[in-house]
Amino acid sequence: MSEKVEFEEHINPNLQNLAPSATLNINEYCDRLQQEGRDIIKLGLGQSPFPVPDPIVEELQKHAEKKFYPRARGILELREAIANRYRSRLGHDCSADDVLIGPGSKELMFILQMAYRDPLLIPTPTWVTYAPQARMLGKQIHTIDTSFEDKWHITPEKLEEFCETSEQKNHLLILNYPSNPTGLSLPHEHLKEIAEIARRHAMIILSDEIYARTHHRKGEHESIVKYYPEGTIFSSGLSKWCGAGGWRLGAFVFPEELRWLNNTMTSAISEISSGTCTPVQYAAIESFQDRDYIEEYTDHTRRVLGSLGGYLSDMLKRSGADITRPDGGFYLFPDFSPLKDKLHSHGIRSSEQMCERILAETDTAILPGSEFLRPPDEFTARVAYVDFDGEQALDASKDTHPASKKLNAEFLKIYCARTVEGVKRICDWMKKD
Amino acid sequence: MSEKVEFEEHINPNLQNLAPSATLNINEYCDRLQQEGRDIIKLGLGQSPFPVPDPIVEELQKHAEKKFYPRARGILELREAIANRYRSRLGHDCSADDVLIGPGSKELMFILQMAYRDPLLIPTPTWVTYAPQARMLGKQIHTIDTSFEDKWHITPEKLEEFCETSEQKNHLLILNYPSNPTGLSLPHEHLKEIAEIARRHAMIILSDEIYARTHHRKGEHESIVKYYPEGTIFSSGLSKWCGAGGWRLGAFVFPEELRWLNNTMTSAISEISSGTCTPVQYAAIESFQDRDYIEEYTDHTRRVLGSLGGYLSDMLKRSGADITRPDGGFYLFPDFSPLKDKLHSHGIRSSEQMCERILAETDTAILPGSEFLRPPDEFTARVAYVDFDGEQALDASKDTHPASKKLNAEFLKIYCARTVEGVKRICDWMKKD
Repeated sequence: MSEKVEFEEHINPNLQNLAPSATLNINEYCDRLQQEGRDIIKLGLGQSPFPVPDPIVEELQKHAEKKFYPRARGILELREAIANRYRSRLGHDCSADDVLIGPGSKELMFILQMAYRDPLLIPTPTWVTYAPQARMLGKQIHTIDTSFEDKWHITPEKLEEFCETSEQKNHLLILNYPSNPTGLSLPHEHLKEIAEIARRHAMIILSDEIYARTHHRKGEHESIVKYYPEGTIFSSGLSKWCGAGGWRLGAFVFPEELRWLNNTMTSAISEISSGTCTPVQYAAIESFQDRDYIEEYTDHTRRVLGSLGGYLSDMLKRSGADITRPDGGFYLFPDFSPLKDKLHSHGIRSSEQMCERILAETDTAILPGSEFLRPPDEFTARVAYVDFDGEQALDASKDTHPASKKLNAEFLKIYCARTVEGVKRICDWMKKD
Repeated sequence: MSEKVEFEEHINPNLQNLAPSATLNINEYCDRLQQEGRDIIKLGLGQSPFPVPDPIVEELQKHAEKKFYPRARGILELREAIANRYRSRLGHDCSADDVLIGPGSKELMFILQMAYRDPLLIPTPTWVTYAPQARMLGKQIHTIDTSFEDKWHITPEKLEEFCETSEQKNHLLILNYPSNPTGLSLPHEHLKEIAEIARRHAMIILSDEIYARTHHRKGEHESIVKYYPEGTIFSSGLSKWCGAGGWRLGAFVFPEELRWLNNTMTSAISEISSGTCTPVQYAAIESFQDRDYIEEYTDHTRRVLGSLGGYLSDMLKRSGADITRPDGGFYLFPDFSPLKDKLHSHGIRSSEQMCERILAETDTAILPGSEFLRPPDEFTARVAYVDFDGEQALDASKDTHPASKKLNAEFLKIYCARTVEGVKRICDWMKKD
């Protein structure tokens, strides 16, 4: 080039120093270590261990030849199926026009953050992606720190206090329950009070309920939509309960009051992605139907996850961590702060150093609490308890009676062996001098 | 709400007044008219009429059960397949590390425009989406107008003149050839000269070659990568030549010099979409192999499109339009300016009014030149000549010998009947008093 330029100077400042998503990155890093011959127990990426139910896979096969461009907001049949389910489950009136399909709820969240200009408000610990999306868009981020004592819940008191002292209003508040990274869900009375505060301060709530159908106690999940229907966007997808993370399909349901936001996002989708993979949309219709095999699938996945989560949580507690048994999903968020002195004595000053040492010395990958916006020197970490053969575990659970009872330690040591072993390694590492 | 707010005020200013993508929108509008009982000939949306080749559909079926999250940059096997093809076809050294997969090249272009902060530079007429993407991102847009006399090509002279007078440099120049909306491709000598200018002014070129494999004359497509390898990003996908628009898969190939941009985009993808549908990625591997059935498929699709394009182009010319026979793709870009006086006498003052009247009076949908950033009062329009049963036409072409010869009018009137009829209606409408 006659005029030599350093192209690196030409990156959008909001994207400079943007690191790859922490959860995807730990997964790729583990793959590299495994290629080097190390047998890593992967408790980093939160990927469902269970297979997609066969009848839903068959729908994808059946519709594979569908080649036409989808509508930007999604194919009508899928939006109708979601609206039907939403009406019957949440008792909330809505139609296909209120539903927006995306290639994963993650992308819909990015487009929402782009379309809605007011600041983001998130409790911490928080899912790894909400804040980086906001940073990429040059959007303001406000956080409310929660605590182990409050079971990592955002409390109505803390939210009210934030609103009273904040100079800005109309925040986009994202609530994720059951929560990634804590596995804990918001108590119903909290939902009610948070809804009232959000209404009073004219916030929009994005209710990220992607783990709803993994709630460990059947029928206990409740949505804040019930209490703040006019200001809440409901978000879900196939990645977690249905095991189809790689298929990339998510959905938002808007109240009629937010139709303008739905429409703006639809226009944005038409210019960004054109819409979501047509065959996957057709396959997804089946996943929103009432089917016995889906009930059976979710009954047994919730039993495996609930039993395992409780068992591992107890193990971690005995090793000295602050931890509460999870309500849903497949995450634990132990706080090893009670072992602070010991960790310090080993030269470990941050959750990042703690997780690096655990990986180096026990071949077990977990993510530090700092990735979830907790203070770097707080010894929290996320354990995604998913490194086991979900198909085997699911089949074995179906053979284990009665279906209402928890699975015992023997079952878990056989069918979730690697995950149990990984958490045992962490506990042993914590106990050693 | 105790404090009533107009939420509409809270849209990102860059997205206010964002209309849905013109091409997707005309398609949805036609669907609505058809639901009202009107039989619309759809020459609006540029969707390949041909089916996805069976062996590629079978690959999607075979990999339907693949459920794991893909790598953000795409699965290795697909990136290797693309690198192999790129090396053998363009003689350009590259590896899987230089390839980036996205859910459509459209989304990759959006992320590129977000990641690279310098202004966008596009010749007009231009594809409908480049500029709206830039506007959504608050990015500067510069245009260079081309003319029918220059076959709607950006000429080296015009580019040089722009560069000499522009206060900014390091533009992202997007070239799309064969072109949507003109169907014309850049002459090889232009490519060479444009490459030299781009190098001298330290531009990045995005070479959008999504129609390359539809070039009507086999082997004639040439890439600017050959002349400006260190500054060109090659872009392609399955939507056009392979008929899989609804599958949403595209790819970029970067030179090693732009690895920093590839890496920044990969991080952005990991936070926006997580990556591209895993089963579709596995299916796409097959489409980048050297296969006899793919050669046969592209030979016959190019024969149908080339024969039809020439035939329709001649029809439009006879009706009084300025037009050149297309080189590739499935678009025509007639300029009815020679009929200006007649159009004016009917009260038609813009390409938009012209297309509205054609739709209202002939039930034939085409898009006005203004959507492609041409002046509103220039009577240009894009005809997407795709409203026919591609599977039938493909089979019939395979039965028509010799394969090297153009298909005659009789063939086209049978197998591309609706499209021929649509263009005939436009011509008749133009001719009437």
